[in-house]
Amino acid sequence: MDTGATAWVLVSAALVLLMTPGLAFFYGGMTRAKGVLNMMMMSFGALALVGVLWVLVGYSMAFGTDVGAGLVGNPFEKFGLAGVLGTGDGAPMAGSIPEIVFVGFQAVFAIITVALISGAIADRAKFGSWLLFAGIWAVLVYFPVAHWVFDFNTDADGNPIGGWIGQGLGVIDFAGGTAVHINAGAAALALALVLGKRKGFGKDSGHRPHNLPLVMLGAGLLWFGWFGFNAGSALGASATAGYAWVNTLVAPCAAILGWLVVERFRDGHATSLGAASGAVAGLVAVTPACSAITPLWSIVLGLIAGIACALAVGLKYRWGYDDSLDVVGVHLVGGVIGTLFVGLAADPGSPAGATGLFYGGGLTQLGLQAVGAFAVLLYSFVVSLVLAWLIAKTVGFRISEEHEITGVDLTQHAETAYQYNESGRPLHPGGQLVRTPDGATEEVSA
Amino acid sequence: MDTGATAWVLVSAALVLLMTPGLAFFYGGMTRAKGVLNMMMMSFGALALVGVLWVLVGYSMAFGTDVGAGLVGNPFEKFGLAGVLGTGDGAPMAGSIPEIVFVGFQAVFAIITVALISGAIADRAKFGSWLLFAGIWAVLVYFPVAHWVFDFNTDADGNPIGGWIGQGLGVIDFAGGTAVHINAGAAALALALVLGKRKGFGKDSGHRPHNLPLVMLGAGLLWFGWFGFNAGSALGASATAGYAWVNTLVAPCAAILGWLVVERFRDGHATSLGAASGAVAGLVAVTPACSAITPLWSIVLGLIAGIACALAVGLKYRWGYDDSLDVVGVHLVGGVIGTLFVGLAADPGSPAGATGLFYGGGLTQLGLQAVGAFAVLLYSFVVSLVLAWLIAKTVGFRISEEHEITGVDLTQHAETAYQYNESGRPLHPGGQLVRTPDGATEEVSA
Amino acid sequence: MDTGATAWVLVSAALVLLMTPGLAFFYGGMTRAKGVLNMMMMSFGALALVGVLWVLVGYSMAFGTDVGAGLVGNPFEKFGLAGVLGTGDGAPMAGSIPEIVFVGFQAVFAIITVALISGAIADRAKFGSWLLFAGIWAVLVYFPVAHWVFDFNTDADGNPIGGWIGQGLGVIDFAGGTAVHINAGAAALALALVLGKRKGFGKDSGHRPHNLPLVMLGAGLLWFGWFGFNAGSALGASATAGYAWVNTLVAPCAAILGWLVVERFRDGHATSLGAASGAVAGLVAVTPACSAITPLWSIVLGLIAGIACALAVGLKYRWGYDDSLDVVGVHLVGGVIGTLFVGLAADPGSPAGATGLFYGGGLTQLGLQAVGAFAVLLYSFVVSLVLAWLIAKTVGFRISEEHEITGVDLTQHAETAYQYNESGRPLHPGGQLVRTPDGATEEVSA
Repeated sequence: MDTGATAWVLVSAALVLLMTPGLAFFYGGMTRAKGVLNMMMMSFGALALVGVLWVLVGYSMAFGTDVGAGLVGNPFEKFGLAGVLGTGDGAPMAGSIPEIVFVGFQAVFAIITVALISGAIADRAKFGSWLLFAGIWAVLVYFPVAHWVFDFNTDADGNPIGGWIGQGLGVIDFAGGTAVHINAGAAALALALVLGKRKGFGKDSGHRPHNLPLVMLGAGLLWFGWFGFNAGSALGASATAGYAWVNTLVAPCAAILGWLVVERFRDGHATSLGAASGAVAGLVAVTPACSAITPLWSIVLGLIAGIACALAVGLKYRWGYDDSLDVVGVHLVGGVIGTLFVGLAADPGSPAGATGLFYGGGLTQLGLQAVGAFAVLLYSFVVSLVLAWLIAKTVGFRISEEHEITGVDLTQHAETAYQYNESGRPLHPGGQLVRTPDGATEEVSA
Repeated sequence: MDTGATAWVLVSAALVLLMTPGLAFFYGGMTRAKGVLNMMMMSFGALALVGVLWVLVGYSMAFGTDVGAGLVGNPFEKFGLAGVLGTGDGAPMAGSIPEIVFVGFQAVFAIITVALISGAIADRAKFGSWLLFAGIWAVLVYFPVAHWVFDFNTDADGNPIGGWIGQGLGVIDFAGGTAVHINAGAAALALALVLGKRKGFGKDSGHRPHNLPLVMLGAGLLWFGWFGFNAGSALGASATAGYAWVNTLVAPCAAILGWLVVERFRDGHATSLGAASGAVAGLVAVTPACSAITPLWSIVLGLIAGIACALAVGLKYRWGYDDSLDVVGVHLVGGVIGTLFVGLAADPGSPAGATGLFYGGGLTQLGLQAVGAFAVLLYSFVVSLVLAWLIAKTVGFRISEEHEITGVDLTQHAETAYQYNESGRPLHPGGQLVRTPDGATEEVSA
Repeated sequence: MDTGATAWVLVSAALVLLMTPGLAFFYGGMTRAKGVLNMMMMSFGALALVGVLWVLVGYSMAFGTDVGAGLVGNPFEKFGLAGVLGTGDGAPMAGSIPEIVFVGFQAVFAIITVALISGAIADRAKFGSWLLFAGIWAVLVYFPVAHWVFDFNTDADGNPIGGWIGQGLGVIDFAGGTAVHINAGAAALALALVLGKRKGFGKDSGHRPHNLPLVMLGAGLLWFGWFGFNAGSALGASATAGYAWVNTLVAPCAAILGWLVVERFRDGHATSLGAASGAVAGLVAVTPACSAITPLWSIVLGLIAGIACALAVGLKYRWGYDDSLDVVGVHLVGGVIGTLFVGLAADPGSPAGATGLFYGGGLTQLGLQAVGAFAVLLYSFVVSLVLAWLIAKTVGFRISEEHEITGVDLTQHAETAYQYNESGRPLHPGGQLVRTPDGATEEVSA
């Protein structure tokens, strides 16, 4: 038992929990004013539901004894955290920390992954159908994939009985480039295809962010929390954690610069939306790589991710899928870049100790990384597509056109985000009430 | 000296400090646009005043040597932190951490408890009178009650000389269900009764939240900070902390689901205000219980608290007390539920080690919990009522009706929260006060 | 290797990283609605650029082997963190923590210091010119000054070879009163002088904060992060950290009270802007002093800083420099007060162990503090003035008057912060630039 390690993982878990509200603000600021609450509710709803599911079966499916072939843990073994709850000296351990602390740390990974998906379906999803999707997706996709990538259990003789990707193949994914970002990004693409485009998608400028300070707040909280996400994945207060920490600082720094340079040359202006998006792109890309590449290579990776994602977010207009808030362009693309980059630039002197192509390691690691990335992408995309399609065909997934025009906040949640005038009327569509200087209220059509 | 424990408590203290701004946003978003600054100022003002008082006499009253009968610590013994400030190997210890770290951790509990009360008196309190109440209440109510519940000091022979509720009776309140939430909730009820209802209370929809993203931000920061509040109360980086951490995750998750289900069936829509309120209700309820019940029971407790508080917040309209932002409905009700639930579901295998009714422990623990809850409720309510009444009858507590119509921000603080148009016109009606370059204030008609 | 210390510094580094977004909100809320994005972008841009520079040369210049006389470290020695990156038992150490963790902790100090400066030039700076200034200033001013104050390296024989101010003279600056606050404040004054006043400065009330809840959010996050800044500077989870922690709580508490009392007596109202500013003033003042003075003296220091800064922020109107968001009035003035106060009230029983005038130490320490403060002030002011002047005369630093009237957000970043109505119309006047789906920008008249 290492109390320093335990302290760091306890904090890291809290930091990662904060990422889900952070994501809610990041996404919520990017929607129009009439869709911000629904966007935030998709994150908070995922939090609530997946948090409970994790305690019930999720931890057991991800980290219970493998049922064979590294595909999934036994869901009944640790159901309700059975066998995890001892206290004091009798507490079960996960390495040098109590297992219950590890349970908490991994719980918030499950939560944020599910919440990430929601960015693809802004303004047009039924809230209940989203919750249905979120709960089933967590069980069918996230819990098994977390087992594939993050479970390094051994049996009593020390033989590996963990996941087939991380432990089996030796794919390096320190903190979830595959299990979190590719996973969520592929599901997001499936959802965007099933739900279809929003009214007016790509045709006007009506879908611009309604509150960029809220986007910046979200990006700031995400970055802050990401130190727990990445450096916490060391599961110890160690040089490895410090190594991951510094990479988690410089990669997004470089990615911001990369994204802003693209904007400056392409559009003439560097934007705050670009800075926020660039930071997230760099964070995504460095997530799988932060224990395997040096800070100098993290700068390179960040620049590549910032530039590539800045270009990738335009593809939805060309190819016509309404990935509303760029989950595909940032998380899927950034996740693939970072996962593959490990195969190129992994430094044998790094904590991960792998040797990439540039260090004379040949194509082996790169190939493994590609297999891991592709496997998660494919599994997540196919299951998500089928699941979303089934929901759409049964209970329905998309709100009516009329409700979409009125706004998803008002029609799904009976709320409007902002009430700056005293009358209590919403500021968005239709006529509005304007307060005159003498304190009276008059109606003005929009 | 355990540096891991020390690190965790240092972080936890910072997390709990953040809860007070978090509360300011949670409450501030729920007011109308013309009262948000005053609401936030009641939190920041309490922070400033109680922080200073804690160093002066608060710590000594709460954790100084008991003056007898477990009622209060000697206020002069550790005045100004006398005897607490040694450094290095000579530093006084509190268990395995330096006592000065414990001082900081407990300080922020005092601060947030006082700030919590302010939610009951939105839009209508004189700022100076609030500060007067806050300071006296901290000294007369919080500091002694913290001693009752949290002081487990022993004398040189190891005999207990701590508080009568926690150490004396053996009431289990791990992180402050009684000392913080019931305490603040009872005081809130007293204040709401003394100050009376806002104009228009219960008659129209004019009191809806003006900024729900701000409410969600507050809820997110509160939840984040609450990991320090609850898991930090283990005063160590241990399995106990992890146990409390996981319960602090799942209880609010379940409470969100509980609250939203009530809304869905009662009103037809699940709201973001409901999700934010449900999270807080679950957090409140699990606060006393997080070391005593399993995660599965925390899910049950969360569901109960979410449902019960969703129903309880409607009582103010039926019974006619204007507990503006539901301090009673969430903190008093949730605190009582959580405190009593320990008596029902306490698991002898949990860190607290108590045995509740469901585990064959009979009614003993439940009875003790009820005594602790009721004692704090009664003491806080009575002292608060008398104190608020005295302030109201002397310096006055409530602003004038004219000022209430104009808005408490403008009349108490000469500010308006938002200035989105360039002209500098306030967004709400009536004349405005303008700060001139030389620092004076002049009145300008709109 | 102390894992508890490592955990605490890892967390502290993350806390200090969060201060830069916090600063962006604190500053951003104080501008008008048409300048908030540019203000936030100056912080995020500094973050991105200085983060990369730190890994490249910054750490080496600040903490590499001194090139002589304590002026600067060898920029090539640890270029790209060479020699810092070992893992496991082979990891280079900085005291009881891995050196890579120290690298991260110090990185965020560099970042926030540069970002602080931007508050002086709201609404009127070219974004590219700001980045140019930020990058060069970091290299020419911050990296050397950090070496002066924070580098306590010794050679193989234990002889001091660190910075001339901290190690050489023995100036006490625990967490950066000189290197961070005086440094940034002096540069801010230089920039304000070179860029000149905004249109309408001091003549009307048009420069009032557009979003005070955003200011409060920034202040809250800054305070939260400051616990890492100050208590993290102990580089250990110790009684010293706890001592600094408690001082970081009470000094700003007292400063809020001091600032609000000034406002109440001078203007008739205590404002939320005053509370937020007071908190920051107290945090600044206690930064150099938090290891050297008792909590009681921290209360006194906070009161002094709150009162003095509340008065000092008016000087810009009298003397005619447009330090837009009071970097000089709060950071320079507060930094000087705190640095000098160490010479007065340093308690020999405190962790720093120095003896101030009030404890019979005579004028020695006070004199040293004055030398340290003045040296940093002078160096930073002169280099900043020359650098800003060169940029202004070559690529230009200030936007055109026309662009200033339209707004720096729209003209520098082609964005508007808020879009609350559905039409997509900006809330402020003049034509707007609209991003079309293909990524181009087109102009639309309002």
